[in-house]
Amino acid sequence: MSSTPATSAPLAPQETTQTDVLIVGAGPVGLFAAFQAGVLGLKCELIDVLDRPGGQCTELYPEKPIYDIPAVPGCLAQDLVDRLMEQCAPFAFPMHFSQRADSVSEHAGADGHPRLLVTTDAGKRFDVAAVLICAGAGAFAPQRVALPEAAALEDRHLHYAVRDTSRFAGRRVIVAGGGDSALDWALALRKVAGRVTLLHRREGFRAADHTVASMRAAVAAGEMDFVVGMLGGLQTDDAGKLTAATIKTRDGEQTLPADELVALYGLVSEPGPIAQWDMDMRAGRIVVDTTTYESSRRGIFAAGDICFYPNKQKLILSGFHEAALALRKAYHYANPQKSLVHVHTSNNAALKEKLTHA
Amino acid sequence: MSSTPATSAPLAPQETTQTDVLIVGAGPVGLFAAFQAGVLGLKCELIDVLDRPGGQCTELYPEKPIYDIPAVPGCLAQDLVDRLMEQCAPFAFPMHFSQRADSVSEHAGADGHPRLLVTTDAGKRFDVAAVLICAGAGAFAPQRVALPEAAALEDRHLHYAVRDTSRFAGRRVIVAGGGDSALDWALALRKVAGRVTLLHRREGFRAADHTVASMRAAVAAGEMDFVVGMLGGLQTDDAGKLTAATIKTRDGEQTLPADELVALYGLVSEPGPIAQWDMDMRAGRIVVDTTTYESSRRGIFAAGDICFYPNKQKLILSGFHEAALALRKAYHYANPQKSLVHVHTSNNAALKEKLTHA
Repeated sequence: MSSTPATSAPLAPQETTQTDVLIVGAGPVGLFAAFQAGVLGLKCELIDVLDRPGGQCTELYPEKPIYDIPAVPGCLAQDLVDRLMEQCAPFAFPMHFSQRADSVSEHAGADGHPRLLVTTDAGKRFDVAAVLICAGAGAFAPQRVALPEAAALEDRHLHYAVRDTSRFAGRRVIVAGGGDSALDWALALRKVAGRVTLLHRREGFRAADHTVASMRAAVAAGEMDFVVGMLGGLQTDDAGKLTAATIKTRDGEQTLPADELVALYGLVSEPGPIAQWDMDMRAGRIVVDTTTYESSRRGIFAAGDICFYPNKQKLILSGFHEAALALRKAYHYANPQKSLVHVHTSNNAALKEKLTHA
Repeated sequence: MSSTPATSAPLAPQETTQTDVLIVGAGPVGLFAAFQAGVLGLKCELIDVLDRPGGQCTELYPEKPIYDIPAVPGCLAQDLVDRLMEQCAPFAFPMHFSQRADSVSEHAGADGHPRLLVTTDAGKRFDVAAVLICAGAGAFAPQRVALPEAAALEDRHLHYAVRDTSRFAGRRVIVAGGGDSALDWALALRKVAGRVTLLHRREGFRAADHTVASMRAAVAAGEMDFVVGMLGGLQTDDAGKLTAATIKTRDGEQTLPADELVALYGLVSEPGPIAQWDMDMRAGRIVVDTTTYESSRRGIFAAGDICFYPNKQKLILSGFHEAALALRKAYHYANPQKSLVHVHTSNNAALKEKLTHA
């Protein structure tokens, strides 16, 4: 979790990908869904609002032991994700990170059968036979800066993620936050920025010991600054550009000149745009049929914690089952002429070859 | 699979066990169900018609790789069983082997709530709040000797399993079959029997190399005989006792004097007595509700390959989910006054202690 975060290049707007199934959410259930899609001979792509696979397991509790995955007694959440990544690796399905599914619409495919077009907030478009939503508690969104002047600066001088470090070249940057992400980015940005100041409300951090040690060493070497305090206000010039931040410290207020603010306060989950996708919902979750895990909207399925039905349990193992059954119905949408023969991974020679020699 | 088979002592007739849930079938789904029962705080016991846990995985294809268990890419069937045994071990639930669930009846418990009484063919009785059937393809039964005179000898001088080797002391025994089980028992019985003859239709065996080598060494040392041929008839005396078997060989027929015949031709699966339990069935499988996996008969649930519903897939991972949901409803039958709080294995301290220090 304390490795240097990956950046993803912005995508060309309106690029459209044709595939069978779009999996929304690359947490454990989405990753197993990708494996199941591969077993069934479906093509799929995955998107996730986070910048890496694993969902909550990776983002919120990578070191937490999980005991109730069948046949995997007591593994850490990150290990579970690693195992699922290994399992779906033979199919090499594209995974698109740091983007959120925003809208969906129906259209007729070349053969006249219904298809869905999903667009993401990064401008990518997916033309698919089915969508499988494995979004857990919903889309993770950054905890935002609670100042009235923040909204106008967002995406211009106030950033909740770093997609391109060159954007910060020569700039005076405040990185606010006390977790691994804030420390990792403060350390990474000090190499390109004019000056980096890490801002955190206390001396202690919720971050790996060696990351904290690296940060303190960089401060001692004069390569960056560290200020204990909280954001009290943001100043802009007449053109609306950020010029400085007001910092509340134990001793009062100070003004810190700054061109850019990167606020990494962690994530909150929220239903996100899918709540507006015209599916039957219940308490923020998608109501599904318990034999196909299809929502009330044709071609859109849901598996894992995001789905709802009577006696639904938020167990990862339930998500695995829900995804497996959903994909069997999705198969018929992707291949309306074919009938699906029950696939056993052990006695399908081509599949076995793929799974064994990956 | 070529270890000396275990014997199980006959149980006292009419012994009645009180518990919350009886799990019928100790294959992968039954074993995970036991773990889930433990997590929920239910008491349970398991029965299986085989003489060890694992069901089909252990009995039919222990060396077969399985690829589609989530987060366990490519494990052998026997490994899967071993992992599930490890996972449910902390709860130490009793497992009763070599017996089949025969009948079920309803009665009122001490508190007036409905309970079920299940009897097995070994004379054991279970007084429970719920039954969870995880019987896979059904009860495994021995492939029987296809001779009209065989039925009358069954359980007297014709045996499809060895429960007590002392029964064969000093007797002339024919062991028929060419798998591990036949070879293992022929080797084991030669130590107590008057004389053991292994009978198999050809020179080759479907058994572990070292077991075949042990058998050939025992034959070479004069400790037992091996005859290539097939059973053509059974002779009895006036009292109906077995006296000899007619053996068809390549050269004609021969008569082999014998007091006991142990026929180990392998197993076939059949619905067994549960097909007569007044549940809605479809093609030999139990029709269940897809939110509770309860059958049409109150308190009797089914999970895994034995259950039926629209879009049902015979995936082990589906059985895990079905069992987990079934047990949540079973919990209410076992604890009609209590409400079940969602249990997360990771943040229940007592449970975590149990799972960690097993």
